[in-house]
Amino acid sequence: MNSPAPIAPPDRGAAPADPASVRVPHDGLLAFTAAVFADRGLPPGRAGAAARALCHGDLTGLRTHGLANLTRLYLPLLDEGRADPRAELRVLADRGAAVLLDAGRALGLWAAGAAMDLAAERAAAYGIGLAAVRGGTHLGCAGHHALRAVARGMVGLVASNCGRQRIARPPGGAVAMLGTNPLSVAAPAGENPPFVLDMSTTAAPTGRVRQAAREGRALPEGLLCDDRGAPVTDPAAFDAGRAHLMWLGGEAGRYKGYGLGLTVEVLAALVPGAGLGPHPDALAGDGGPHGRDDDIGYFVAAVDPGALREGAGADAEGLFGALLACPPADPAEPVRYPGWHEHHRAQECRRRGVPLAADLYDELLGVAARTGLTAPPVLEEGR
Amino acid sequence: MNSPAPIAPPDRGAAPADPASVRVPHDGLLAFTAAVFADRGLPPGRAGAAARALCHGDLTGLRTHGLANLTRLYLPLLDEGRADPRAELRVLADRGAAVLLDAGRALGLWAAGAAMDLAAERAAAYGIGLAAVRGGTHLGCAGHHALRAVARGMVGLVASNCGRQRIARPPGGAVAMLGTNPLSVAAPAGENPPFVLDMSTTAAPTGRVRQAAREGRALPEGLLCDDRGAPVTDPAAFDAGRAHLMWLGGEAGRYKGYGLGLTVEVLAALVPGAGLGPHPDALAGDGGPHGRDDDIGYFVAAVDPGALREGAGADAEGLFGALLACPPADPAEPVRYPGWHEHHRAQECRRRGVPLAADLYDELLGVAARTGLTAPPVLEEGR
Repeated sequence: MNSPAPIAPPDRGAAPADPASVRVPHDGLLAFTAAVFADRGLPPGRAGAAARALCHGDLTGLRTHGLANLTRLYLPLLDEGRADPRAELRVLADRGAAVLLDAGRALGLWAAGAAMDLAAERAAAYGIGLAAVRGGTHLGCAGHHALRAVARGMVGLVASNCGRQRIARPPGGAVAMLGTNPLSVAAPAGENPPFVLDMSTTAAPTGRVRQAAREGRALPEGLLCDDRGAPVTDPAAFDAGRAHLMWLGGEAGRYKGYGLGLTVEVLAALVPGAGLGPHPDALAGDGGPHGRDDDIGYFVAAVDPGALREGAGADAEGLFGALLACPPADPAEPVRYPGWHEHHRAQECRRRGVPLAADLYDELLGVAARTGLTAPPVLEEGR
Repeated sequence: MNSPAPIAPPDRGAAPADPASVRVPHDGLLAFTAAVFADRGLPPGRAGAAARALCHGDLTGLRTHGLANLTRLYLPLLDEGRADPRAELRVLADRGAAVLLDAGRALGLWAAGAAMDLAAERAAAYGIGLAAVRGGTHLGCAGHHALRAVARGMVGLVASNCGRQRIARPPGGAVAMLGTNPLSVAAPAGENPPFVLDMSTTAAPTGRVRQAAREGRALPEGLLCDDRGAPVTDPAAFDAGRAHLMWLGGEAGRYKGYGLGLTVEVLAALVPGAGLGPHPDALAGDGGPHGRDDDIGYFVAAVDPGALREGAGADAEGLFGALLACPPADPAEPVRYPGWHEHHRAQECRRRGVPLAADLYDELLGVAARTGLTAPPVLEEGR
């Protein structure tokens, strides 16, 4: 079995698949995941949407936001009642282009996509549409939801705070006040793969740190630092309280990363009135991560260039095509853009099966056994 | 005279004022700058707005985007006919919440603020408002225009591409394809200074590199690199073609900075149909900066939380107040947020006068002599 490494994005830090891995059929993996969610009470359509959102991580190589989170995050959320499988999105205010929604603890894997569908409908009418959401739970890969706008020829923007979960310290601060606050923007690119930026505003998301800790891999410098700002490469130091997440931009540019994290907090949580990281309650923190990621807020927006002018589709194809045609410094490494590698990797996974680390596949077998469902078969075993 | 350094933002990289500097009265500086623009044909109200936008840089410490650009950028734009002092903003499409405007080469220092006023009017009605602008010229500090939304209790977003000027290479590319593509977000913070993020998506804007070159100062690592990616600290290497701007995020995170730069290109230029950096024409570039910053596009948006819910103002005050109350790692360096330092510095400048480097003041005396206007008097001489 080939490793997916050759088409992994060179700068996203996605680790190559574990050498001990299997491939499972994409359709079977989706059907199994949807059945697991349906077993927890999600209506069928919603379970399917949540499964597609979760498997998007494994399909595109963002393994930290894929099925690894099924038993670590989503099933516990449902089993503890922190997520409500049947909650409807409730409209609290509707100003035409902008709608304020209460997600009522619905599973974010589904709710964020439903919010994007609403934002895109409004964008088709008004040129821009916004669904501002409170009461949300973890939405998975923000880029998956942003891509729903691209299917309609629109630009999609999705940002999420982390509710009251505080993980990252403001520069110079001794107490964690903010989440990793992800931000995604997706845009059509004509016949080229869509542009998809999907990033934490911290230097890395916590999932990447914890995955490295599970796999016993050191992290590169620039992601974690100690109390005095010195670089830390041992991922286990994070959950041991001996290291903190750095902001995007490194030491010199951290005010920009911090500012982007605050931008997400403002747009995704202040605007809809969701749980805020920076809050007087946060001051009781002891320096490390604290608080729970309940009452998450989302900023879900769509911009429809076609509602404003002709020719945007051709211009988009020209823009991203010009980037792909940029002469590379090293002929062996052609120029790409965010989303290109993920698109090609997803195509390969649909064709050849989705690679899953052996221990992750074992987790799915455990879920299957406990729910009485059948796990997807192994197509191919890795080295 | 005290240096403004103690209240300069620690991470913005704003250099302390030149030791040989003067302070001039804020009102006098604004009136002089407005008179210079009026002399070039701007209607009086527009000349005043452009003067406030330009002086915002010197007032807040973003000296690279202040009066230093009067003789380097704005007067040449007007004198060469690349900017039209009297062009009106023409509505090409109006979808209620979103409006497409052609700025017709109006001076961006004025036009971007006028676009924000329109976006904010639409946000008051629809919850969100967008003015998508093509045909623009350089808008100065994006944060100044984003702040116009804050005056109405709204969140302001301003992004601008650099038209067809290509300065930064895509990661792995041998040809410059994108501009420094600034992005600004401003939000109310109650009784606290407003939040204002105002950043280039490259590690530094070109103005910072060129200012360091003029002043003979080395740059910190992380802003420029050579053809092989090795760090360069000599700012003169940039215009000599021996160094390139790096993306925000450094070597490890550059795909995020590049993705943010592309986000600005999509929102600010693809949506309105302005000049694009990545375009087949760009492939003729020789590796260094090329192309002109004509037909710049802006994404100017406002979100009105008050149109969606009650209590957003109090929540904003709580959010930013909690950050200011965060226990600092070093008691001598309290926790702040982007916009805090700039607000306090501007207050001091309004009270004590605006510090200008001696050579910049000499440039203004030269402009005064050539236009028959009187430059603002010196209040105080520096060391």
